[in-house]
Amino acid sequence: AKVNAATVYGKRGMSLEEEINTSNTYYLSNAIAVIHKKPTPIQIVKVDYPKRSAATIREAYFSKASTTDYNGVYKGKYIDFDAKETTNTTSFPLSNFHEHQINHMKQCQNAGGICFTIVKFVKLDKIFLLKAEDLFHFWDNKETGGRKSIPLSTFEENGYLINYHINPLIPYLDAVDQIMKKL
Amino acid sequence: AKVNAATVYGKRGMSLEEEINTSNTYYLSNAIAVIHKKPTPIQIVKVDYPKRSAATIREAYFSKASTTDYNGVYKGKYIDFDAKETTNTTSFPLSNFHEHQINHMKQCQNAGGICFTIVKFVKLDKIFLLKAEDLFHFWDNKETGGRKSIPLSTFEENGYLINYHINPLIPYLDAVDQIMKKL
Ligand SMILES: [Mg+2]
Ligand SMILES: [Mg+2]
Repeated sequence: AKVNAATVYGKRGMSLEEEINTSNTYYLSNAIAVIHKKPTPIQIVKVDYPKRSAATIREAYFSKASTTDYNGVYKGKYIDFDAKETTNTTSFPLSNFHEHQINHMKQCQNAGGICFTIVKFVKLDKIFLLKAEDLFHFWDNKETGGRKSIPLSTFEENGYLINYHINPLIPYLDAVDQIMKKL
Repeated sequence: AKVNAATVYGKRGMSLEEEINTSNTYYLSNAIAVIHKKPTPIQIVKVDYPKRSAATIREAYFSKASTTDYNGVYKGKYIDFDAKETTNTTSFPLSNFHEHQINHMKQCQNAGGICFTIVKFVKLDKIFLLKAEDLFHFWDNKETGGRKSIPLSTFEENGYLINYHINPLIPYLDAVDQIMKKL
């Protein structure tokens, strides 16, 4: 069934974020978890307040996200993650992350949260969940001259492969359950 | 010392949100908790992409917040709350909340999160933390013909008075500690 689902959904061309949002809607409506994508941070410069109609933002700029894309609550625990896609087929370039996102995840992890990244290798049609500590390991090594990407083999060996499913489309909380068991 | 701090800071005319943001910055930089205000949700209609400069949003509208203002992690637990100010002196009008905010808090509470509201009675210069379940009690009663506000006495008897302090300015996680003890 899982293989068929992958075939069905993989061809729809949903972005990873859409796939996650759909899964989060399922988790929410089934009272399993409350996890939302944060609004895009915007720096507002000019707003018009027309009479008898809604305030209109006339000049604004996209700010750099200082945190990750998703957070929420599952089984009382704080969940925090970012979703990334890559067209690479053998490794995931660390340039997909900004330093402030890594710092945010380190802060959350330190405060007892469960932090990870969900990476989709688009051309392989494979999605992995990788614990933040594995990401930090490569990130910190890069800072001291190490490799600038995480090899696919690390995702295969240390990560959690997330097979497409029907409901939820991406059952990534199954991987979180496994992480929680080891806490 | 607490009384003096109240005198000092109370006169600065900070909004409750500014006071909470300042406190969150203290909690973050001291590795106590990671709690951020969510970006304002915006519906973007038109974006210009000028050559050689940043994308400019030319038409956008404020969306209704579907969740609360603040969330984050403290001692591994998911924290979720909204901050509200009132100029009333004897009660807090429930019209300060939107139904979707209440629903969001109910969902988070149900998933094991710690949810509450922080209410500032501006003219009394008093700040209270009230557990979400106390808020739900009044909200649900209102739906069935009950009173449309929460009396000050409920805050005094069931809530947690938050006295101004130096660092953090509003030590609201002290109240959260007390809530956690009773879980
Ligand atoms: Mg992302
Ligand atoms: Mg608010």
